[in-house]
Amino acid sequence: MTPISASLSTPYWRIGLDLMGSDTSPDSLLNAVLDGKTAFLPFQITCFVQKKFYPACRALLKKSASKNIFLKSCSHYISQEDDPLKALVEKEDSTTRVGVFMLKNQELDAFISLGSTGALIGASTLFLKKIPLIKRPMLVAKLPSKKGSIYISDVGGNASPRTSNIVQSAFLAAAYASYDNPEKKIRLGLLNIGSEGHKGSPFHRDAFIEIKAIFKDNEKVEFVGNVEPNVAFSGKVDALASDGVTGNIFLKTAEGMSDFIFDVISATKDGKSRCVSSELTSMFDYSEYPGAIVGGVEELVIKCHGYSTSKSIGHTLFKAKELLQGQFINKYKKMILNWKV
Amino acid sequence: MTPISASLSTPYWRIGLDLMGSDTSPDSLLNAVLDGKTAFLPFQITCFVQKKFYPACRALLKKSASKNIFLKSCSHYISQEDDPLKALVEKEDSTTRVGVFMLKNQELDAFISLGSTGALIGASTLFLKKIPLIKRPMLVAKLPSKKGSIYISDVGGNASPRTSNIVQSAFLAAAYASYDNPEKKIRLGLLNIGSEGHKGSPFHRDAFIEIKAIFKDNEKVEFVGNVEPNVAFSGKVDALASDGVTGNIFLKTAEGMSDFIFDVISATKDGKSRCVSSELTSMFDYSEYPGAIVGGVEELVIKCHGYSTSKSIGHTLFKAKELLQGQFINKYKKMILNWKV
Repeated sequence: MTPISASLSTPYWRIGLDLMGSDTSPDSLLNAVLDGKTAFLPFQITCFVQKKFYPACRALLKKSASKNIFLKSCSHYISQEDDPLKALVEKEDSTTRVGVFMLKNQELDAFISLGSTGALIGASTLFLKKIPLIKRPMLVAKLPSKKGSIYISDVGGNASPRTSNIVQSAFLAAAYASYDNPEKKIRLGLLNIGSEGHKGSPFHRDAFIEIKAIFKDNEKVEFVGNVEPNVAFSGKVDALASDGVTGNIFLKTAEGMSDFIFDVISATKDGKSRCVSSELTSMFDYSEYPGAIVGGVEELVIKCHGYSTSKSIGHTLFKAKELLQGQFINKYKKMILNWKV
Repeated sequence: MTPISASLSTPYWRIGLDLMGSDTSPDSLLNAVLDGKTAFLPFQITCFVQKKFYPACRALLKKSASKNIFLKSCSHYISQEDDPLKALVEKEDSTTRVGVFMLKNQELDAFISLGSTGALIGASTLFLKKIPLIKRPMLVAKLPSKKGSIYISDVGGNASPRTSNIVQSAFLAAAYASYDNPEKKIRLGLLNIGSEGHKGSPFHRDAFIEIKAIFKDNEKVEFVGNVEPNVAFSGKVDALASDGVTGNIFLKTAEGMSDFIFDVISATKDGKSRCVSSELTSMFDYSEYPGAIVGGVEELVIKCHGYSTSKSIGHTLFKAKELLQGQFINKYKKMILNWKV
């Protein structure tokens, strides 16, 4: 993860950006990247596109006279309809696979994907070094809460969770919260359908017992037990462990509800502009949030929203820079290994 | 379900209201009922309380001089910590069990509980007649959406769902939506982590195939496939099938997010009163929503929020009256049996 020009006063981070597989065409996404380019100065951004989109993207790039954005053309990409693991095997020259390999080979410092979550997590799991203890890497997201932020893992939609995955999600969420709040004792909860210890699936009940034992008398993390989604934003909890389905439903419902409320507010006769400040609107605009990290691998991999705008790509790139500068991966790994029982 | 005084011009519905097992004390809840009593005139309300709360409740009732509210004292109640099924067997004289039995014996027209969801569904399943085809009764909720309402089942937190439960949840949600919108072709979706047909657990994939086959060429219901929570409120879908965990997480996250946003808005310097109309606030105030019905039994059973206020109890009572007057249970049953394959 050494920047290519460490001799420059500003580190020059090499970021891979997979523009394939989202709801938006890669040239529109490239436009979004170019729109915000001034914000990205300390980056060398390699944009991954499928061959057939290369000419259009090339023309856009030429017109922009951008110096720090490059294109990488691949034969394939992995779509939302593909079986991720099968596609990773069959589509060797696909944007996600090539990007993750470049990260593995130290040709990139971070890789950001706007496409298939399954393919990104699959490629990270198969090809990158994993943090010991984490068997199955997963998505860790940071969301707003009444008193700052809440960190939640797994939000990636792993549809067959085991107890061990849920326990590992506790490590990954708590470590991200702790990285951002080094002075704070992190209150970690288990996202569940009820607050009582016996609630949820057998996996949840077993994970509850294991997580409680692991963080007993821990100086940095306090396990507060099961947390229901209606109190998750209250500020009473900083990090949430969950299985992939529960976390994914939680994240997407929060996004949908926020979108719904601000849509209704903006349609009222006063109008959003006078009624609710743009600052407030941004706070709940999920497209302005940086993407979720793939927790559990020893490289920086980020999943950006599929419907990303220049704002959300910009925020994600900015977050990548912050995490690289802060040596996130090293600190994150160290914390998790410390908690190992 | 005949009103006791069918000869009166206004039907006089006999409602059972279980005040035990919520976060609020039964006497506070009784106060909430008494506060709103003018709205409840066509009711004879029997409030179920545990013996030790009877004197305090009795005193409150005396002071109010209310004519249509009665108390029923029971030895026990089923708490959130109890194993619902075990408690239903062991606590014969518990408020939930006694109330459901009175409903079964036609001594009540509807039963509303503010306590344990598991106990309410358990008692309904064990003691009431089930609609043929529905093996496992479940909670069906009605929530606001951009274009009216969305009906979702199961929101009750059944932690070990099977394919058949998810398929039955489709019947229950679609029938409730159809009852409220008799002229409309109901767009039914399956709540899932992705929009593609192969997404979710094996149960979800199998349920997808079954639901698709059942509603093929149906005049009243169109199955639109998997629906992700972030588009559930868009108005593109009217009813959602789901397993109990996914639905429960969806409902509680929507509630938590809504609460969070309006809390932040009210804390801004303009203040909520000038900024967002009370009408708008009510639209998203989940405590003002009527409770969820226990779908699949041939009696009217409703679960009201545990943190219920006089408003939410009032709305739930009003909803019960509407459903009784509209002969909901009969029509609901007929619709579901029509769809049987």
